[in-house]
Amino acid sequence: MYWTAKAQLGRKILTQANQDFTARLSHVAAEMESVLGAHLPAPKGHQSVIMDAMRYAALGGGKRLRPFLMIETARMLGYTDKGVYIAAAALECLHVYSLVHDDLPCMDDDDLRRGKPTVHKAYDEAIAVLAGDGLLTYAFELLAHKAVHPDPALRLGLVTDLAKAGGAHGMIGGQVIDITVSEIDRDEALITQLQDLKTGALIEYGVLAGAALAGASAEQTEALRGYARDIGLAFQIKDDILDVEGDANLVGKAVGKDENLGKATFVSILGLEVAREKAKDLGIRAKSHLETFGKDAETLCDTVDFVLERSH
Amino acid sequence: MYWTAKAQLGRKILTQANQDFTARLSHVAAEMESVLGAHLPAPKGHQSVIMDAMRYAALGGGKRLRPFLMIETARMLGYTDKGVYIAAAALECLHVYSLVHDDLPCMDDDDLRRGKPTVHKAYDEAIAVLAGDGLLTYAFELLAHKAVHPDPALRLGLVTDLAKAGGAHGMIGGQVIDITVSEIDRDEALITQLQDLKTGALIEYGVLAGAALAGASAEQTEALRGYARDIGLAFQIKDDILDVEGDANLVGKAVGKDENLGKATFVSILGLEVAREKAKDLGIRAKSHLETFGKDAETLCDTVDFVLERSH
Repeated sequence: MYWTAKAQLGRKILTQANQDFTARLSHVAAEMESVLGAHLPAPKGHQSVIMDAMRYAALGGGKRLRPFLMIETARMLGYTDKGVYIAAAALECLHVYSLVHDDLPCMDDDDLRRGKPTVHKAYDEAIAVLAGDGLLTYAFELLAHKAVHPDPALRLGLVTDLAKAGGAHGMIGGQVIDITVSEIDRDEALITQLQDLKTGALIEYGVLAGAALAGASAEQTEALRGYARDIGLAFQIKDDILDVEGDANLVGKAVGKDENLGKATFVSILGLEVAREKAKDLGIRAKSHLETFGKDAETLCDTVDFVLERSH
Repeated sequence: MYWTAKAQLGRKILTQANQDFTARLSHVAAEMESVLGAHLPAPKGHQSVIMDAMRYAALGGGKRLRPFLMIETARMLGYTDKGVYIAAAALECLHVYSLVHDDLPCMDDDDLRRGKPTVHKAYDEAIAVLAGDGLLTYAFELLAHKAVHPDPALRLGLVTDLAKAGGAHGMIGGQVIDITVSEIDRDEALITQLQDLKTGALIEYGVLAGAALAGASAEQTEALRGYARDIGLAFQIKDDILDVEGDANLVGKAVGKDENLGKATFVSILGLEVAREKAKDLGIRAKSHLETFGKDAETLCDTVDFVLERSH
């Protein structure tokens, strides 16, 4: 009886924590929507279509996971200055540009993104290329803004790190591997490297930019780097799992695509069960990096569960 | 006899100045080639094709006019620190990315650039999109580097200004107007605005970044802004003239294209003679802004002549 009650209480607490987390995630996503809406250039002049397309791509959807990680990492370390939201918006602009370009006919040729037509479908290819360019360029303008943080040297560090995370040795490099290395040459090591670059680099940037803004110590930064790497890879494995198991309506983009294309993914290489185990193990390891932060790390811990349990 | 001798001497001096200018332009172009070669990421890893394509696009050609303007503006003001070359390389990376994307099939669909196949012809469309993205991203990484200037706040200013010059209110905006506004709706005012954004913004950035690096006064900066605007527009009018009169072998890209496409240009709207006059007048006005710098402005003055007299 006692154990049953305790177990029920445990479940109840878990559910409460879950609700708190979901509310927090929604709250940050709503804030990000508002910050992006306020800061993205307003449609103006003979070129207003480009501001329209940039806003179309960036507003109205997305989990805002990268901004969330930045904001929550800073908050865990006691830093809640609203400048973090501006830096987070810059990161989101860079992430969104990569989606717009990845969706192009010459790349993944996707028609659907975040549940609505991709930019080249809603506008055209040229506008999609330029809207992506505009968002990438604007990310650096936002990040350099004094509203992000009073210290110019710190903002400059954020600029450098974002350029590295998004560049040929980071995200772009991952996309290049993804479109050029043939399926037959992909083993687990290559796919891991590909994902570390393509997805992991920006997730890590989110966490470490939050740490930098909050003035984290070198030791804290290293722990957070470990956390970011593990949650980033877990996120990608879960993405591959969702491509096999997911519902297109929930996922917001085509599913079963990797399998149809005969694409090598964590699921096709490891099998569904092993992939699930691996994601779970990475989740446990991600949380272990947070032990040093004690109870303050609750939201970042819950983010691991969210990443692994999400249906989209 | 005396007058003839004096006139001959005058021509000789002019020729000498011309030779000095040409030598200086070649010297800076060679330096830029070397700085770009040393700083652009070396091909490495499974994504080495992207570093290859970035180098293919950025190396081996181009007048390097924008870097030249930055370097010569700084030098006129007595500043010759080699950090200017790094900032100039960043500007060139941004300029080159814009060429790579403008040449894409969904935009201007050009096969030839700087006398060699465009990036999407030499590689493919996806690599061209990503190489452009890589160069744009790398421009900000370079510009933020401490080798540019010891003051982080100054470097941050350069980052902000480059993002603005290259963004939706700058160069990208100009390209959008160019591909979306129908020929029939283009008058001289619209084409001037289009070119101010598409070409002028980066030329102005080159001059003003040189001024900022050299610690120019507000008054000097304003004079240089006037110079940059006039030389930028003169440059574009000359480009339109070359499209009608030029030799494809010298110009390094297709000529007669605007006319074949029925494109509204300064030449089609003003006529060849009036366009030539306008470019000449802008050249005179550009030089008048330099009077305050006296003899030190010789190279920037010669640059005006070069822009107007070039055959490519």
